[in-house]
Amino acid sequence: MSQTDPKVVMKQQVALAAVERVKSDTVVGLGSGSTAAFVIQYLGERLQSGQLSNIKGVATSFQAEVLARQYGIPLLTPSEADQIHVAIDGADEVDPNKQLIKGGGAAHTREKIVDCLADEFIVVVDDSKLVDRLGTTFLLPVEVIPLAVGPAMNAIEGLGGKPTLRMAAKKAGPVVTDQGNLVIDVKFPNGIDDPVALEAAINNIPGVLENGLFVNVTHTVLVGEIIDGKPQVREA
Amino acid sequence: MSQTDPKVVMKQQVALAAVERVKSDTVVGLGSGSTAAFVIQYLGERLQSGQLSNIKGVATSFQAEVLARQYGIPLLTPSEADQIHVAIDGADEVDPNKQLIKGGGAAHTREKIVDCLADEFIVVVDDSKLVDRLGTTFLLPVEVIPLAVGPAMNAIEGLGGKPTLRMAAKKAGPVVTDQGNLVIDVKFPNGIDDPVALEAAINNIPGVLENGLFVNVTHTVLVGEIIDGKPQVREA
Repeated sequence: MSQTDPKVVMKQQVALAAVERVKSDTVVGLGSGSTAAFVIQYLGERLQSGQLSNIKGVATSFQAEVLARQYGIPLLTPSEADQIHVAIDGADEVDPNKQLIKGGGAAHTREKIVDCLADEFIVVVDDSKLVDRLGTTFLLPVEVIPLAVGPAMNAIEGLGGKPTLRMAAKKAGPVVTDQGNLVIDVKFPNGIDDPVALEAAINNIPGVLENGLFVNVTHTVLVGEIIDGKPQVREA
Repeated sequence: MSQTDPKVVMKQQVALAAVERVKSDTVVGLGSGSTAAFVIQYLGERLQSGQLSNIKGVATSFQAEVLARQYGIPLLTPSEADQIHVAIDGADEVDPNKQLIKGGGAAHTREKIVDCLADEFIVVVDDSKLVDRLGTTFLLPVEVIPLAVGPAMNAIEGLGGKPTLRMAAKKAGPVVTDQGNLVIDVKFPNGIDDPVALEAAINNIPGVLENGLFVNVTHTVLVGEIIDGKPQVREA
């Protein structure tokens, strides 16, 4: 993909629209994924150029940490940050109530820790991520400690889901998260009825660390789309 | 403590009463703690003597695993066990509705995985563990990934708890669980009103793996007590 690929330009424009909302003297949650990567790049460039000053980042993943160092954004851990003023992160599905599914990058646990702490949580997506009903285009990721994988899969079936263990592409066997756990991807054949109840029910399964439902967390959704061949950004 | 210390004899008698309920050809969840250690010992002895046959164990902790190997009980992982017929484990507090607080040994995550799988869950305690209201004599343990300790403590305060990070005695710094996580011990100044709601609320805090509330899991509570200087066992 070249820099003139409309899809890439669209991601860049959404990222830019989000970065324009960041003020100096703030702590910023740094998301994971391809659009969030542009956010980190632009934020770092504005910090280096002096357009912004005294920005500190809180990384949602190892990927975000590496990019923040590369672009010169000083980092805090979630425990060090007294306050996170704004977090900017991607999503795999966004419904009309701004409820999300995240976790395609297996980083949803750390993302949830950071995004939930933010005074304002801005989601940056392209319009392919907008859905009428969660769970219809994307599987729900659930992070589980290795010991509990079998029982947790059974418990998820009891909730009406069809679980599969996420397998890795560049290592033998399953994907291992940054925390050393495994990811179960869950299909709900008719989508997800009640995201609030399902989030809590899955988190209450013994051995489950976190699932990819982000409910009542998002303040703003910035959507990139291509209209008449031109990238556009709008607020959903 | 000698073998004739009434408190030790009492623990042994409770353990024996529990082991007497185990049948041949079953899978048994093996608990953690001092009374559960006697359970594993007696179960292993009965297996070796032929009084019981074809018993397999599922360990709730590294401690239980070591003891099971020592006493010759073959082990399955939770994922290998199609069914756990009975689990026998201790508790730190037991209320009149058989709701529990566990986690004094920082093993409550794995204990919950195993104990919740069992067709019958038998709790073995001495009468000092019986309380009218949970949270009045024992702090509630919460296992959290290291990254989330600060935010999780804030969230727990938002639920009315007073959190402290559990410090280790034989290593520098905090206790680290068998899963590599940390333990926050939470005081609820007036005890715990609604264990069912609190269990789910705490498990829904980002970065929390599991808390020590075991609700609607226990079938049978065997209580040891000393009456007129003699150890006795009764069902609560």
